[in-house]
Amino acid sequence: MTEADIGLIGLAVMGQNLALNMNDHGFKVSVHNRTSSKIADFLQGPANSTNIAGFDSLDTFVSSLKTPRKIIMMIRAGKPVDELIARLLPLLDKGDIIIDGGNSRFTDSNRRYQDLSGKGYYFIGTGISGGEEGARHGPSIMPGGDIGAWPMVKEILQSISAKVDDEPCCQWIGPGGAGHYVKMVHNGIEYGDMQLIAEAYHLMRAGLDMSVDEIQETFAEWNKGVLDSYLIEITANILALRDEQGAAIIDTILDAAGQKGTGKWTAISALELGIPLTLIGEAVFARCLSAIKDERLLADKLLSSSHAIFEGDRKSILGSIHDALYASKIISYAQGYMLMRDAATEYDWPLNFGDIALMWRGGCIIRSRFLGNIRQAYDENTALDNLLLDKFFIGEIKVSEAGWREAVTLGIKLSIPLPAMSSALAFFDGYRRGRLPANLLQAQRDYFGAHTYERIDRPRGEFFHTDWTGEGGDVSSGRYEV
Amino acid sequence: MTEADIGLIGLAVMGQNLALNMNDHGFKVSVHNRTSSKIADFLQGPANSTNIAGFDSLDTFVSSLKTPRKIIMMIRAGKPVDELIARLLPLLDKGDIIIDGGNSRFTDSNRRYQDLSGKGYYFIGTGISGGEEGARHGPSIMPGGDIGAWPMVKEILQSISAKVDDEPCCQWIGPGGAGHYVKMVHNGIEYGDMQLIAEAYHLMRAGLDMSVDEIQETFAEWNKGVLDSYLIEITANILALRDEQGAAIIDTILDAAGQKGTGKWTAISALELGIPLTLIGEAVFARCLSAIKDERLLADKLLSSSHAIFEGDRKSILGSIHDALYASKIISYAQGYMLMRDAATEYDWPLNFGDIALMWRGGCIIRSRFLGNIRQAYDENTALDNLLLDKFFIGEIKVSEAGWREAVTLGIKLSIPLPAMSSALAFFDGYRRGRLPANLLQAQRDYFGAHTYERIDRPRGEFFHTDWTGEGGDVSSGRYEV
Repeated sequence: MTEADIGLIGLAVMGQNLALNMNDHGFKVSVHNRTSSKIADFLQGPANSTNIAGFDSLDTFVSSLKTPRKIIMMIRAGKPVDELIARLLPLLDKGDIIIDGGNSRFTDSNRRYQDLSGKGYYFIGTGISGGEEGARHGPSIMPGGDIGAWPMVKEILQSISAKVDDEPCCQWIGPGGAGHYVKMVHNGIEYGDMQLIAEAYHLMRAGLDMSVDEIQETFAEWNKGVLDSYLIEITANILALRDEQGAAIIDTILDAAGQKGTGKWTAISALELGIPLTLIGEAVFARCLSAIKDERLLADKLLSSSHAIFEGDRKSILGSIHDALYASKIISYAQGYMLMRDAATEYDWPLNFGDIALMWRGGCIIRSRFLGNIRQAYDENTALDNLLLDKFFIGEIKVSEAGWREAVTLGIKLSIPLPAMSSALAFFDGYRRGRLPANLLQAQRDYFGAHTYERIDRPRGEFFHTDWTGEGGDVSSGRYEV
Repeated sequence: MTEADIGLIGLAVMGQNLALNMNDHGFKVSVHNRTSSKIADFLQGPANSTNIAGFDSLDTFVSSLKTPRKIIMMIRAGKPVDELIARLLPLLDKGDIIIDGGNSRFTDSNRRYQDLSGKGYYFIGTGISGGEEGARHGPSIMPGGDIGAWPMVKEILQSISAKVDDEPCCQWIGPGGAGHYVKMVHNGIEYGDMQLIAEAYHLMRAGLDMSVDEIQETFAEWNKGVLDSYLIEITANILALRDEQGAAIIDTILDAAGQKGTGKWTAISALELGIPLTLIGEAVFARCLSAIKDERLLADKLLSSSHAIFEGDRKSILGSIHDALYASKIISYAQGYMLMRDAATEYDWPLNFGDIALMWRGGCIIRSRFLGNIRQAYDENTALDNLLLDKFFIGEIKVSEAGWREAVTLGIKLSIPLPAMSSALAFFDGYRRGRLPANLLQAQRDYFGAHTYERIDRPRGEFFHTDWTGEGGDVSSGRYEV
């Protein structure tokens, strides 16, 4: 019996498709799953007439692998990963490679990397994006962890990944949990992209009173321009689909969105690092708000608005909505990159921002033409501080700005909530303000808590306190002295 | 030597003022501080001619206390608290009471409560708000932890707290870390209130081109109406203050705001619990954005806007800005109460929302007339689901709504960032929409990840999957079947 190149544990949708993908690329794959019936179903179903071999026992599964063994886990994040690692270790030899391909929290991957490398095993925590279809035909793969293991898995991972201009959407990200961190930010950005599309859809449906067909045509058209992306494409596809009675399926779906954790983790990381990731934050909160459907129905009765309809030139306002979506998307990615820039410093990860754009350019859920522009910006200036300071994006924002303001203003007028688009605009207007009103915040903090402040006419790092009330203690020395 | 009623450790601003406050109310107080010189300074300075006794050694400090001993720690949150508890325990008897009066994270207080009650000691984690002045003359006190200790400390804590209509702003909150949780939400709301005031100030200063004096008069005027509150009051006081050259001090202060953790903890808790706390989230992020001053200065050059000035009826637009501040504030408190409502369920805390409004009504930084209205809303209906569904607040929002929209629209027109006000408006418009565009999010999630969705024409809890591409696996059964 030929020994397998790689073993895969966990035969849910992603695991199955990844195994088939590896098989297609000529790798011999062993699979295992806790519930044995799933193995049989897989081997008799999708994996029929492949070289994939299934093993009911973890023991024989491990024995079927070439050494150093490469085992990729495609299971639920959290405790199950720790439990599986604990069951695997007694069966492995030092130098074997454990790959976690699930949506693990990066702090868990940091911990597992430390733990396993201390014991002599290689650990790789890798983000894999692309959903069912991506996993099957070429996902975006973001591996991090033990760079010593990279040469041993690089060929497999790069060959199964998506390609853009012959470059694989799979590059080494960095140590520890860096791979899962970048995947987390990818998912956060995905939350933002989806929310922006939903807001554009809402403006068209409730504000412009457009039919599903008309909206479908609009998204299909947008997908030919700067917004060309997987999520815009599938939005057009979704809106095209009818049920057996000919009704648009979109209209039958309940407006209560779920979330699986990575979006909120991204926002939490931003709060912990102190990075203003407002758009993704609003996108996560928008899902939370959607989830309290019953309370919203009650509020609709008690607080109902006029639900007025736009009366003006539709073509022109659709251009504005397009520009609002595009400009807000630029803000969202700029914020996401601000977060990664800070994380790279904080955790000492040598992140390559151009490579990350390349990896996201194909295969994954946020793949888009736009990511090609981001890659170009970092190719031209690897030390770029912020996407918003790149000349291409400065130009794009300038062209979109008037329409962006018009669309957000329309939402306010028609009481259509645009939390992500309006938050992006407020961020943009704050980002380019040399002077913000935070001087008042500092004065207030010094007033009630003697927190001190810096001055615009003195070097940074010099702190001043004012005895605002004339009743302060000895921290300051007089009523009118700053 | 008379034994002391209570011991206090930590002689920073809050600790000193709290000790003096307890002394004023006839309690005999022992104090201790790690750096001995601070004890001497305090006793010879502010505590001169009081009954406060100081102890250089922790041992003699503990011995000076009546049993069961009551020790309140006013030290920096985090590790120092654990270290001090570890040093105290060998000196204490079972049944003694350790009170943490600092800004500890509620999860730490949960843990300390578990740990200490298991060892036979009482633990109280209490939020104390009011800054320097509040601590001295009557703060808001939010105690939680071991209810068995409450009868033994109630008299001291309630007597030193602020009073509103003869009711003490100090009531038992709940078990474990409940006291520190409510204090955390208080601080989050404080972040929101401050940001809203800063946005109103920014609109007036940069958008209406008003002088500091004119803005000062406006806030002083607002403080006589529905916005009557400590933070509006001190804003007017701040704007009135001039330096020796007669220049407004506010204009000399650097616009880079710091933060001490509780605001971001509140936003993180909201993300973890899935509650849309958008306004506080934006307020925290606004501080983060203010902090990157150098990058903003660069962006101001590269992305500069027109900086146009409002040309219209100033009195009318000031009314709109007032209404925007007021309505946004209602949203912020409604969101804060949504968070506490969910935390009460999640952590099994019997939170009394009317009591919480009472405690915040006086003494603390967010004290205001407005909190009297909130208390009344919960007095009238203790089971109130949401402040936005209370008839008083429905009426207030209705009156303010037009001005709110006008002010936010003006900010967009003049490119003045109003992240909190516009986020509040988007939340309001979303909250009262029976139908949100989250159906599209659910369709997208089902498209790329087979996440399934619910339908509007079927009971909740029934999940459907569509094979959107016609290439899906066996999870769904046909192209047009939902």
